[in-house]
Amino acid sequence: MSTDHRVEQARPSVPVSGRHATAVAHPNIALIKYWGKLDEQLVIPLVDSLSMTLDVFPTTTTVRLGPAIGTDTVTLNGMPAAGEQRRRVIAFLDLVRERAGSTEAADVETRNSVPTGAGLASSASGFAALAVAAAAAYGLDLDRTEMSRLARRGSASASRSLFDGFAICHAGRGSGDAADLSSYAEPVTVPEFDPAMVVAMVDRAPKAVSSRAAMRRTVETSPLYPAWAESSRADLAEIRIALERGDLEAVGEVAERNCLGMHATMLAARPAVRYLSAATLTVLDAVSDLRKSGVPAYATIDAGPNVKILCHRTDAAHVAETIRGSVPGLSTVTAGRGPGARLRPGVGE
Amino acid sequence: MSTDHRVEQARPSVPVSGRHATAVAHPNIALIKYWGKLDEQLVIPLVDSLSMTLDVFPTTTTVRLGPAIGTDTVTLNGMPAAGEQRRRVIAFLDLVRERAGSTEAADVETRNSVPTGAGLASSASGFAALAVAAAAAYGLDLDRTEMSRLARRGSASASRSLFDGFAICHAGRGSGDAADLSSYAEPVTVPEFDPAMVVAMVDRAPKAVSSRAAMRRTVETSPLYPAWAESSRADLAEIRIALERGDLEAVGEVAERNCLGMHATMLAARPAVRYLSAATLTVLDAVSDLRKSGVPAYATIDAGPNVKILCHRTDAAHVAETIRGSVPGLSTVTAGRGPGARLRPGVGE
Repeated sequence: MSTDHRVEQARPSVPVSGRHATAVAHPNIALIKYWGKLDEQLVIPLVDSLSMTLDVFPTTTTVRLGPAIGTDTVTLNGMPAAGEQRRRVIAFLDLVRERAGSTEAADVETRNSVPTGAGLASSASGFAALAVAAAAAYGLDLDRTEMSRLARRGSASASRSLFDGFAICHAGRGSGDAADLSSYAEPVTVPEFDPAMVVAMVDRAPKAVSSRAAMRRTVETSPLYPAWAESSRADLAEIRIALERGDLEAVGEVAERNCLGMHATMLAARPAVRYLSAATLTVLDAVSDLRKSGVPAYATIDAGPNVKILCHRTDAAHVAETIRGSVPGLSTVTAGRGPGARLRPGVGE
Repeated sequence: MSTDHRVEQARPSVPVSGRHATAVAHPNIALIKYWGKLDEQLVIPLVDSLSMTLDVFPTTTTVRLGPAIGTDTVTLNGMPAAGEQRRRVIAFLDLVRERAGSTEAADVETRNSVPTGAGLASSASGFAALAVAAAAAYGLDLDRTEMSRLARRGSASASRSLFDGFAICHAGRGSGDAADLSSYAEPVTVPEFDPAMVVAMVDRAPKAVSSRAAMRRTVETSPLYPAWAESSRADLAEIRIALERGDLEAVGEVAERNCLGMHATMLAARPAVRYLSAATLTVLDAVSDLRKSGVPAYATIDAGPNVKILCHRTDAAHVAETIRGSVPGLSTVTAGRGPGARLRPGVGE
């Protein structure tokens, strides 16, 4: 590991002009979940989270300053972004401009290779790519802790996609600037742990309730949330030990229970938030059957019906085939440890 | 309501000899759930529960003293009962014999009209019928509070099936005899509230994990259990007000959230207990769609995949048809408020 605290990814081998930059980021899947905000405005998590960055579903984002017209344009997968998606990108650009002392508008062009808003971590890869590209385009020189805080403002999970492999995002403490400073991501160095993550695409449709709204409702109304947040701290301590040992079964067991606990807090929200669909449970049953047959496989589920299954790389093909056989029409993508967000060298001038 | 504290149901219009007695009891469905024991041995709940006794799925139990052979025989639906089922019935008879100062063995013959052990409250109707029949056969004269404590020893939910319509079972406090005395059931008098309960039979197979084992695991390992138990006290206070107002929508809303909270505590147990199947969630989706279409319908789910839907009697046929259409092969039974457990007059001498 480098001891340089600058963001290596933000220093392309080919210099960019500062007028435009392209970054690539991958989604990450949390094994210890982020659910609940200390501060809605500053996007500060109430709980620590720990994730694996994937090597599939990259998001590629180009930020180009000074368009002919003086307002930002935001394009997502070739179409103009609208509504909440557009608003979030522009709010993020405003933050970068404020720090860079710039008033220049930008064209933002993003391509996701994964369905957007379906619980497949598109906002993690999206805001990680946007943070790296926008910081470079506006000429911000941030170390990686600062970059993770910046990405967090777009989506807390994005802070983790800055890093290769495994990363932790620290919950915030206090309020205001102190809270902002206290919440950042950093890598968790476990070079020997190299599992597979089989992503089971149960449903590609955008979810009915956004993660943001669901988190807020859970924190505000679920009587079970504080107990889960407390138990999640113990889960984190336990999974870090398991990761260091490279113990897939222990990692998987803690990850699955942490995820089920998170969904449990949502079930008890008022009204209930349920991302688990009938097909999700069928996949969970198949994962449980895999374990009974002696294959270590553990499920984790984010804010959507899709299921990600942690297993040994050598078991991944069998796990994927079994899961596909469990639900008609279900497709799978098998991922490994992926790279952190970085500028794409050679694109630009 | 009668002010007589004796159990009216235990006083048949036709006298029985005390040597044998037949009782009929109906299952009840909890709107505020019983989940978790203060005392395993004495079967004392940790939380108050509130239920509706149904007018379907009766259990009929005959207790006949002094069989030719000197050991108890237990017959369930025409077959000799074995294992845990037999053990629980005999332990219950021992309790009755101890109180009656009897050493006589008994033949117990039970017929359930509902699948046993499938989350359809067969143990509630079963132990309510057994308590009433055994008490009469062994000549115990119990008031209804005492009878509810006795039935509770078989299954805490059985204590509620002694009563017509709605009943509450009080959680226990303290330990030993004091705890035993503190936990009993009593009727909740809401004569005007007369809803329907559509029972959706998703799966008739016995559950993989018994309620008893699942409760114990939840209390011992789920970090979310204490918070749910606390919230359930507030739910009870709220539903009692809603019941008194005859407000089906408020009753249903509290009941559904109380049930989802209970299942949430199980999801977070270690390992997780999940009674919710894929078909269960499909039925929950259909219930949610009914509400969106303007039909007040609220789901509650016990320790099994089956779903019970509370609705207005005038909507029951539509609700049942909609639910049947949601899962292939699903059948429904529509229940109303049912009678408390009672001796069957004229059967016996």
